[in-house]
Amino acid sequence: MTQAPTAAVLLIGNEVLSGRTKDKNLGFIADYLSALGIDLMEARVIADDENDIVAAVNALRARYTYVFSTGGIGPTHDDITADCMAKAFGVGISHHPEAVEILTAYFKEMGREANEARMRMARVPEGATLINNPVSKAPGFRIGNVFVMAGVPKIMQAMMDALAPQLVTGVVAKSITIEFQGGEGDVAKPLGAIQDLFPTVTIGSYPFESPQGFATNLVLRSRDAGELENAAQTVVTMAEGLRLDGKARGWKRL
Amino acid sequence: MTQAPTAAVLLIGNEVLSGRTKDKNLGFIADYLSALGIDLMEARVIADDENDIVAAVNALRARYTYVFSTGGIGPTHDDITADCMAKAFGVGISHHPEAVEILTAYFKEMGREANEARMRMARVPEGATLINNPVSKAPGFRIGNVFVMAGVPKIMQAMMDALAPQLVTGVVAKSITIEFQGGEGDVAKPLGAIQDLFPTVTIGSYPFESPQGFATNLVLRSRDAGELENAAQTVVTMAEGLRLDGKARGWKRL
Repeated sequence: MTQAPTAAVLLIGNEVLSGRTKDKNLGFIADYLSALGIDLMEARVIADDENDIVAAVNALRARYTYVFSTGGIGPTHDDITADCMAKAFGVGISHHPEAVEILTAYFKEMGREANEARMRMARVPEGATLINNPVSKAPGFRIGNVFVMAGVPKIMQAMMDALAPQLVTGVVAKSITIEFQGGEGDVAKPLGAIQDLFPTVTIGSYPFESPQGFATNLVLRSRDAGELENAAQTVVTMAEGLRLDGKARGWKRL
Repeated sequence: MTQAPTAAVLLIGNEVLSGRTKDKNLGFIADYLSALGIDLMEARVIADDENDIVAAVNALRARYTYVFSTGGIGPTHDDITADCMAKAFGVGISHHPEAVEILTAYFKEMGREANEARMRMARVPEGATLINNPVSKAPGFRIGNVFVMAGVPKIMQAMMDALAPQLVTGVVAKSITIEFQGGEGDVAKPLGAIQDLFPTVTIGSYPFESPQGFATNLVLRSRDAGELENAAQTVVTMAEGLRLDGKARGWKRL
């Protein structure tokens, strides 16, 4: 099996760190990449600070197949992402002719002045290609393996659709969830043994409180459907054994 | 004015990266720290991977006053946070007598076996102190400037309350939001000039679509109440000028 493509997400913006805005972009991108068989390995939330952005971009783009950033590409003084990307890649930044054309036409249509601040949104690092923005026209861009998107969820989501065809995808990991109706501490040891038996299956345990008492979702994930099913059967057999032992109220394959 | 304490959040867990779980912990911790006058500077989401956890902990604890981690302190094989913290600090790990006592009493009361997996939750790095868990007893811990908490939101939130008295707090930043009812591109240039006039006030612009058309929230934040109010008045004057110019439908101080 070839190695799956990997990715990191970089959320840029003071508003998430101050608590004012509750992020909705990470979950969306995580689901999106999972569906494409791309492994999201890491996410970072950082402030609108040039040094921090440049350092994070360079750390992440060196390590992963793709980096997806959100935020900081609007017309105001706190929108510094495009300049930071240029700095991270060591290239210049200038108005992209196609972006200028798109924005000029859009502002004309909207009866808005194509002023300097608005046209800043046409500036992209040298060598970057545009990412279409069907919502509010101001484009995102791709430079190297970094995709630079807006922070507004609706626009970011449209940009993901626009850029997706460029991505090398992987085999999609499938998952099976078994709800173990009992204490996580009772399932822990046999579950660890099952994990050792199935190294190509990642097994996680996510406890929760149900109306009937403590329970835990055992989530198995793998790109190998046969091994995934074998591991799930083994977990079910183990859970049934614990039920017969009186150590679980029951189990359910979700 | 003395420098405010700074912090980073480290969310540990594959389930957020796969998209299966939508994180709720970052927003809570961000609000909590803001209310204590502690500046959250960065957040990272990483997988249940020893090398990644150790590297992230060491990078963050060196840079910020505090680090708050969530996740990976349960009884199952994928709960490796305590061991990784010990490794990051270069210390051993062993069963903490007080944690053993708390857990033994709790499992006895609950009629559960104090088995090896469950008692793993009493293991903390040498030199760590416990963080009380009023929800499900298994404690978090503090080592150095790192606070290690559970990933389940209800438990994490109780742990924040338990550890908060240990934190050095700062002057709480106040914020004022002015809703500018017009295009962000029209407010951008004067807003940048106002930002330059008030270096102790951080001004952000967060566009949104209202039923009446495009609008943007201008959010001013500062620890200096006088400067904050001065900056807000200046923004209001500017917004009113744009309204009179026909470049805005209006504005509203929220």
